[in-house]
Amino acid sequence: MNILPATHPLAAGRTASSALVRALQGVRPDRLPVWFMRQAGRSLPEYRQLRAGTPMLDACLDPEMAAEITLQPVRRHGVDAAIFFSDIVIPLKLAGVEVDIVAGRGPVFPRPVRTAADVERLCAEHPAESLRQAIAPIREAVQRVTAELGATPLIGFAGAPFTLAAYLVEGGPSRDHLRARALMHTDPEAWKRLLAWAAELSGVFLEAQVSAGASAAQLFDSWAGSLSARDYTAHVSPSSMHTLERVRQLRWVDPASADGEEQPVPTIHFAVGADHLLEDFARLGTNALGIDWRIPLDEASARLGGGVPLQGNLNPAFLSAPEQALEAHLREVIQAGRSAPAHVLNLGHGVPPETDPEVLSWLVQRAHALGNI
Amino acid sequence: MNILPATHPLAAGRTASSALVRALQGVRPDRLPVWFMRQAGRSLPEYRQLRAGTPMLDACLDPEMAAEITLQPVRRHGVDAAIFFSDIVIPLKLAGVEVDIVAGRGPVFPRPVRTAADVERLCAEHPAESLRQAIAPIREAVQRVTAELGATPLIGFAGAPFTLAAYLVEGGPSRDHLRARALMHTDPEAWKRLLAWAAELSGVFLEAQVSAGASAAQLFDSWAGSLSARDYTAHVSPSSMHTLERVRQLRWVDPASADGEEQPVPTIHFAVGADHLLEDFARLGTNALGIDWRIPLDEASARLGGGVPLQGNLNPAFLSAPEQALEAHLREVIQAGRSAPAHVLNLGHGVPPETDPEVLSWLVQRAHALGNI
Repeated sequence: MNILPATHPLAAGRTASSALVRALQGVRPDRLPVWFMRQAGRSLPEYRQLRAGTPMLDACLDPEMAAEITLQPVRRHGVDAAIFFSDIVIPLKLAGVEVDIVAGRGPVFPRPVRTAADVERLCAEHPAESLRQAIAPIREAVQRVTAELGATPLIGFAGAPFTLAAYLVEGGPSRDHLRARALMHTDPEAWKRLLAWAAELSGVFLEAQVSAGASAAQLFDSWAGSLSARDYTAHVSPSSMHTLERVRQLRWVDPASADGEEQPVPTIHFAVGADHLLEDFARLGTNALGIDWRIPLDEASARLGGGVPLQGNLNPAFLSAPEQALEAHLREVIQAGRSAPAHVLNLGHGVPPETDPEVLSWLVQRAHALGNI
Repeated sequence: MNILPATHPLAAGRTASSALVRALQGVRPDRLPVWFMRQAGRSLPEYRQLRAGTPMLDACLDPEMAAEITLQPVRRHGVDAAIFFSDIVIPLKLAGVEVDIVAGRGPVFPRPVRTAADVERLCAEHPAESLRQAIAPIREAVQRVTAELGATPLIGFAGAPFTLAAYLVEGGPSRDHLRARALMHTDPEAWKRLLAWAAELSGVFLEAQVSAGASAAQLFDSWAGSLSARDYTAHVSPSSMHTLERVRQLRWVDPASADGEEQPVPTIHFAVGADHLLEDFARLGTNALGIDWRIPLDEASARLGGGVPLQGNLNPAFLSAPEQALEAHLREVIQAGRSAPAHVLNLGHGVPPETDPEVLSWLVQRAHALGNI
């Protein structure tokens, strides 16, 4: 266990009573908290202007730029949380793994990891210690963000171990991650070692964001949906648990609470197209689960026994729809979210790049107005 | 209603008592029927040799070549059904829609369909009648196949209307078909018209294969998994129903049956990553449902009330695993399949191109040996 310093936004009482933190603690706040996955980024003209000429990973590692990009959507939309601007491959890059972002394709790894020997080399050449030693730009960016955010919490984020491993095994993005899913059966020992390594990297990355000032942490398992339920349980879930434990061992005391009990930093788990793993995700024990747009929140909540705060799940397909259709959808999502102990309104997936930012601002206002009806 | 001629493999009694047809009728046959999605194609060296120099769509439209490719895996593996070698975009191409297969990307449509005017033009310029007039090569290929197949049934196949529409709206393959999913909300009327058109094309294509000699028909909704349950029900399912009705109105009489009752040609529905739509697919009323690798067949069967024959669902990630692991997985799938009224063994997805054909042959033999234990 590690106790966060009294200057941390949670421990200092700045964000402890925010709508987001309260909702993650399972207490329905006065105001429906709203934020959008990928709110920091391509949908904003001020982002495109700032980023012009700077490669993606360089922007993530420039503390001033990363902080500014993280803050832009908070200023513009009035969302209830900032999400740290980063990329899922940043912990790998900081640990020294060679990676390039290729336009129209995504991150590409020139040396895919496909054999036990590849795994061996990877773990030996790029230990978590390398990431720890290179983490300063991340900590600095988080500190810059939280210095400006005041009562608005920052959410730290990291890709889950499976998603990181799938990138490395495939050598880049792939449709169904078959090479990665095959490795766990052709060489279960090498797979286990790879996942343990990725879990530690992912954990160190999240831990750094939280200890530097993030008030919550979201683990994105972008590609878990391609796994069978059996493979997820046997070959993946323990590594996500390891990553989350790295964050949950950071404790803080809510200055407004009477009992002064230490509690873990709130966590959120999110995956997409992974309806069949919902109950497995619940066993990871995060404070809240993000639900994509595929099933309504009341159905998800019923499957979880009604006890898990949920985040989501506006269907991005409505973002270009006429206002009337979008508002009807928003009302449905808010209504369905009432069946969970608490609800954090979000999209069921990241903001599509072509989204009109005005629509996002409108959604925040309408959600705040409708959230208390 | 149309009665299939007495020369049709079903009506003539050649395939009516095959393990596949019996299983689709919900009767557990003496032998566990086995076939593999995409068994006809890239995993076979004899296919690569035959196709060398012939573009994909040309191969599909050359009756002799399409027939030979359809037959190759039946000869090599001893599977219990042939699947017609074709491509999901063939009905579009035959209706005169411009399409190119781009290596490493898939089918690309130079004129994407994104507005009501685009839909209008598409429907006016490429009516289902154009497909009917161009269908001869498909009928001829099916006739060539069934003339050689004897007691082994041929399964006809078509892409479902949503999958066809998604290709057209996106202009090619896409990660989550957001443009298509948005169109149904930005312009529901144009969407409805597009889906009705696609449903008719898909229906005509399947009907042609069945009337020419296929003993069953599988509708592939490759991309339905990206839809919310609500959108599937409201904006997609009626069109799949229309396509299926085109096939089910073809009736035949089992010569071995005492009552001489006319019955529809058996149908299978398959989608991938669509666990959240399982109950919706059941409402389409196909004889069997294909299940991908994500959940075990006993879980799927329980959700369906135990009354639906299931097809699937070997995890392709095991195809490169050591024999012992693959056999253990095969045994599990066969065991789980016993909870359904009948089971057609298949992969939970198409054969990956890099699959060792020997492994597929081995699977057929082991499945036949284990299927009766």
